[in-house]
Amino acid sequence: MSRTLDAITAADVAALCRGAVFLATGGGGDPYVNQLLAERTLAECGPVPLVPPASLADDAFVLPLGEVGAPTVSLEQLPVGDEPLRAVARYEAFTGRVPTHLIPFEIGGANSVLPLVAAAQRDLPVVDGDGMGRALPEAQMMTFAIEGAAPTPAVAVDHLGNAVLFDVAIEGPGAADEYERQIRALAVAMGGMVFTAEHGMDGALARRAVVPGTLSFAVALGELLARHRGIASDLLEPLTALFERSDYGVVRRLYTGKVTELSSRTVGGFDVGEVRLEPLTGSGEPLQISIKNEYLLARSGERVLASVPDLITLVDHETSTPINSERLRYGQRVTVFGVGCPPHYRTERALDVVAPRCFGFDVDYVPIEERLV
Amino acid sequence: MSRTLDAITAADVAALCRGAVFLATGGGGDPYVNQLLAERTLAECGPVPLVPPASLADDAFVLPLGEVGAPTVSLEQLPVGDEPLRAVARYEAFTGRVPTHLIPFEIGGANSVLPLVAAAQRDLPVVDGDGMGRALPEAQMMTFAIEGAAPTPAVAVDHLGNAVLFDVAIEGPGAADEYERQIRALAVAMGGMVFTAEHGMDGALARRAVVPGTLSFAVALGELLARHRGIASDLLEPLTALFERSDYGVVRRLYTGKVTELSSRTVGGFDVGEVRLEPLTGSGEPLQISIKNEYLLARSGERVLASVPDLITLVDHETSTPINSERLRYGQRVTVFGVGCPPHYRTERALDVVAPRCFGFDVDYVPIEERLV
Repeated sequence: MSRTLDAITAADVAALCRGAVFLATGGGGDPYVNQLLAERTLAECGPVPLVPPASLADDAFVLPLGEVGAPTVSLEQLPVGDEPLRAVARYEAFTGRVPTHLIPFEIGGANSVLPLVAAAQRDLPVVDGDGMGRALPEAQMMTFAIEGAAPTPAVAVDHLGNAVLFDVAIEGPGAADEYERQIRALAVAMGGMVFTAEHGMDGALARRAVVPGTLSFAVALGELLARHRGIASDLLEPLTALFERSDYGVVRRLYTGKVTELSSRTVGGFDVGEVRLEPLTGSGEPLQISIKNEYLLARSGERVLASVPDLITLVDHETSTPINSERLRYGQRVTVFGVGCPPHYRTERALDVVAPRCFGFDVDYVPIEERLV
Repeated sequence: MSRTLDAITAADVAALCRGAVFLATGGGGDPYVNQLLAERTLAECGPVPLVPPASLADDAFVLPLGEVGAPTVSLEQLPVGDEPLRAVARYEAFTGRVPTHLIPFEIGGANSVLPLVAAAQRDLPVVDGDGMGRALPEAQMMTFAIEGAAPTPAVAVDHLGNAVLFDVAIEGPGAADEYERQIRALAVAMGGMVFTAEHGMDGALARRAVVPGTLSFAVALGELLARHRGIASDLLEPLTALFERSDYGVVRRLYTGKVTELSSRTVGGFDVGEVRLEPLTGSGEPLQISIKNEYLLARSGERVLASVPDLITLVDHETSTPINSERLRYGQRVTVFGVGCPPHYRTERALDVVAPRCFGFDVDYVPIEERLV
């Protein structure tokens, strides 16, 4: 990994959000409002200490936080701002367990910064890492779940102050699927987006289950993107230099083109869609990208260029700004990058829940570095 | 009301269930499995004392219990049997409140007997009454909600052992609507049917909010139906004699015919459908009945014969056995009765949530005794 940080300051938040949108592969929710919230809170309460997962004591209690829902909802249903703190307080009141550390359940988008808000307000450290190293749409796809953390007790709160406590009776791999069914249905019923505290785990489990260093890495990536606010063709070289020193490994430029077709529906609590890109000039094969909150599969005709769990990210071609899927619009000129996924997702057990077939695509997972360019 | 009982014994359960299916107006769930469960439990644990709501002390704590979901689901997804007891235990553990009395949230169908199971196991009395005097599909339609009981804290449990605790932040009339959205979505996610403890209230509120005497009345009605296991044409006279001594008041025979069209879908956690009846012999106007779990509206052409909140009940024409909506089949020969609703539902505040327009019918509520025969 690149340099790891000892703390996240208010001044780091903008870079963190920029980097997190790149890592979010389209999902995770637009971070703009939450960036403002985090900047204000950290300016008031001071920086949030970052703790490397490797240094967690066995008896630490790490509580993951994040938003569950369809990213499009977050564009219109703004947070009150006290959701992260309320989620932690409700979790403590309902379960009697008090966290020693907080952590984002995914590094993607808005979800990377919201745990910092509660951490600053509660004077708690945050573990430098997350449960995905990217964003993914469902609970059972978290490394926490894959490594055996129980999803519940879990608490969901919404912007109205409603709270729901979940206690799944199933143990083992099916627990996260059951929790996912319940929390997703509830998120839809509660306006399309809820904030949750879930998958609480001790330090011994967290050392194994956390994708390490991703908060620090997102800041470094965001700083890189802020320096290179120019045409995306020039971005591959510095990106490669950064990613090859990380657990992600390879970066590839997959395509440059404009959005010529775009379909998106909010269904079952997810944003589901397809985007078609065609070359900026002249003729050439189009690129088709399938979306379920995140960009999951990039195909050119029958040829797969990249697939989940590897990262597929779209950036604005002129400014290199990463684009969340809910911000995609007809006519946008974009460059598509593919990035290797963290090693956590390349185990057989992980691929059982995050391979392309888990999303209904009739395609095997081939690591991006093994695909023909 | 007719005779009120001091207790429900194992020997009363069959009559209670038979009467409760009549009062359920199609909904409430088929009670057969729950009847067996209640008979066995009461035989083992002894009779369950019945307490008239008027005799409740101010500081009594009355906890309503019942199943939420689509009645068709209960035909295939059988209960484990410990759901009522688990719901009470989880409610106590989550909230710290211990009920002094239990009560069915609706008298209809299976929901009339399930609270007796937990009451027998926990040696608790049951309030002689319920929150509907019939069955209705949604939480905000309960007299408990109409009279101001907060729906939450509420607990839902399922047959797998999962538990969910709800805490709605909204106060006043909107609370039950918000809870209904949440519990309905969750019931669908948890297999279509959950068992809940909700709308807990003190004795002072219960005295006002409970539809009184309905457990005793359902037993008397069930005994009447057991005595008259013949053609439904002969049923009107004894039914009238029973109902006119109750808060329900009038009974009318609305139609006798056979099912010639039947549509039913399980959608959004409800059974929604239409049934068309035509005369047994000769020609004549058909009768159209609209269903949302319950029989809600009976129309002959443009003419409304009866509507919610008044009761519409179908019985088998040859045996006078009441028929749950999920048991309706093409070709059945049925007689349709209309019954006045309890006075709780004839207030302006109640009609705001249970009038025909609340179900999407472009029809005003006219009490059944004021409709032209």
